[in-house]
Amino acid sequence: MNSVGRSWLLLTGFVLFYVIYLLFGALMFSSIERPVEDKLRQDMEALKQEFLNQSCVNSTSLELFLVKVLTANKYGVSVLGNSSVTSNWDLTSSMFFANTLVTTVGYGQSTPLSDTGKAFSIVYALIGVPFTMLVLTACVQRIMCPLVLVPVRLLQRSGMEPRPATFVHFLLLLLVVVVCFFVVPAAVFSSVELSWSFLDGIYFCFISLCTIGLGDFVPGTQPGQKYRQLYQVTVMVYLFLGLMMMYLLLRTFHKMADLHGLTTFLQLPHCDESDLEDDREPIVEGKREDQAPPCQTEKKASKHLKPGSQPTYNTINSG
Amino acid sequence: MNSVGRSWLLLTGFVLFYVIYLLFGALMFSSIERPVEDKLRQDMEALKQEFLNQSCVNSTSLELFLVKVLTANKYGVSVLGNSSVTSNWDLTSSMFFANTLVTTVGYGQSTPLSDTGKAFSIVYALIGVPFTMLVLTACVQRIMCPLVLVPVRLLQRSGMEPRPATFVHFLLLLLVVVVCFFVVPAAVFSSVELSWSFLDGIYFCFISLCTIGLGDFVPGTQPGQKYRQLYQVTVMVYLFLGLMMMYLLLRTFHKMADLHGLTTFLQLPHCDESDLEDDREPIVEGKREDQAPPCQTEKKASKHLKPGSQPTYNTINSG
Repeated sequence: MNSVGRSWLLLTGFVLFYVIYLLFGALMFSSIERPVEDKLRQDMEALKQEFLNQSCVNSTSLELFLVKVLTANKYGVSVLGNSSVTSNWDLTSSMFFANTLVTTVGYGQSTPLSDTGKAFSIVYALIGVPFTMLVLTACVQRIMCPLVLVPVRLLQRSGMEPRPATFVHFLLLLLVVVVCFFVVPAAVFSSVELSWSFLDGIYFCFISLCTIGLGDFVPGTQPGQKYRQLYQVTVMVYLFLGLMMMYLLLRTFHKMADLHGLTTFLQLPHCDESDLEDDREPIVEGKREDQAPPCQTEKKASKHLKPGSQPTYNTINSG
Repeated sequence: MNSVGRSWLLLTGFVLFYVIYLLFGALMFSSIERPVEDKLRQDMEALKQEFLNQSCVNSTSLELFLVKVLTANKYGVSVLGNSSVTSNWDLTSSMFFANTLVTTVGYGQSTPLSDTGKAFSIVYALIGVPFTMLVLTACVQRIMCPLVLVPVRLLQRSGMEPRPATFVHFLLLLLVVVVCFFVVPAAVFSSVELSWSFLDGIYFCFISLCTIGLGDFVPGTQPGQKYRQLYQVTVMVYLFLGLMMMYLLLRTFHKMADLHGLTTFLQLPHCDESDLEDDREPIVEGKREDQAPPCQTEKKASKHLKPGSQPTYNTINSG
């Protein structure tokens, strides 16, 4: 089969498998969560009925009251007595919100109430998200040398072959990240947050550092939290460092995959020649030798720049 | 100043500016949202007091009742009468949840209740998130030719210079994306969802396609939604296509920035030579001419692979 056909086949396979994966997830989540949800729903119904029976409140006025309570709660305003002291929009909490916005974690435990707030969120994230990516990239570039290049070289010096060396290094880095950015923080969170188990801590770290940010667990939101502001700042620093390490891990994995030929195997031909069959003139007239239609050029270039040719690892590769 | 010094200065500047940007965001959000929140908080307090006065419920039992109501609500189980019909964990809703998990949007309107569900979420996202990125990348590679390379070439054929051509093309692409993936969907959402304004629609599209996913607006959650399952599948398709277009836009912007020398200006030297001053031997012994310490190699290579040398645009660049 030619490369174009293979490329389409691979893409169709990817999309098909993506849909199957979603369906599989749906079936699993549905079968795991549905019974628990049904139980909770029944409990709530019973609770409501009990509350109505014990009091002289009529069903309609309770319903009206609860609608308002739940709407306010959606915006982070709780009707409970002990929670009215702390604001979601004091300086540290606002900074925490701004931080979750630009890192695209977005817990949503507090969300803008006003139209001005929503509009400002859009503008703020529009600048903030790319800028945060830039800062993270710059930081990862900085730590790439001491945390990736030097250790790989040391492993090789100790007599290891280049490919196993990168593999061992990746495993070691993974272990360090898992311990320092998942296990230890999870232990800390589960001891600081009264209602969190260790699994909740791990779940929070994972959901945060993948930037999913479901927001069912958000540190520093329990009423009467000691040193709440300091705690929130610490979580912000943790998030930043954690995202940096996740990014480093991703880049290291990508480089290792390049070295083992995995990326080349999965890479699709960039452009379909047939798209331009009737149109084979160069983009720019004259002045350059390597004139070719843009797609051909990209294809040709992708050979030069194919993942395996990543320079840093190339030197290792040659060993 | 040498490149190492410049690099550190740039990095420090970045991080400093990042903190300032967060502080600025905090001040703005705090000043915009705090008054609205205070008003809502007062209203809730008054509402609660009024409810207590009108009924024979005592404060403590109401508080206990509300704690349970709000906890259940956090897990997507509403105590309200009209919402008990639809489950958050039927097949389509579970698929919607799985989709927001793997795309890292994570609205969190429904979250796993059980420990099994949490553990499964971690494993599911661990495989799903990289796989989704792979599928998105493959799709973007496919649409790169008809949506980027061909239009740029057509613009150049019409007599435009290469750099303005890429700029005009980017603006056109941006316009198309804004209209097709923000304005039109926002109009649709604001007409389908009863409580959404057009701004809410735009805000939802933006928060979703940046993968922030705050979850204050989630389509298909209003009670009695017609064709809810079809609607949720449509939103899933919209999210996938939207993310693909955002990624395409990002790549096109990156290529355009390369062409205009912006990326080279912002790029930091990859590795600090001083880190390896005492250690200048090559990673791998022999077999290769371009032996140099890993960091030097990376630095050297970064010249070869510097953004400006992106092959596709290089041919354009030469015009």
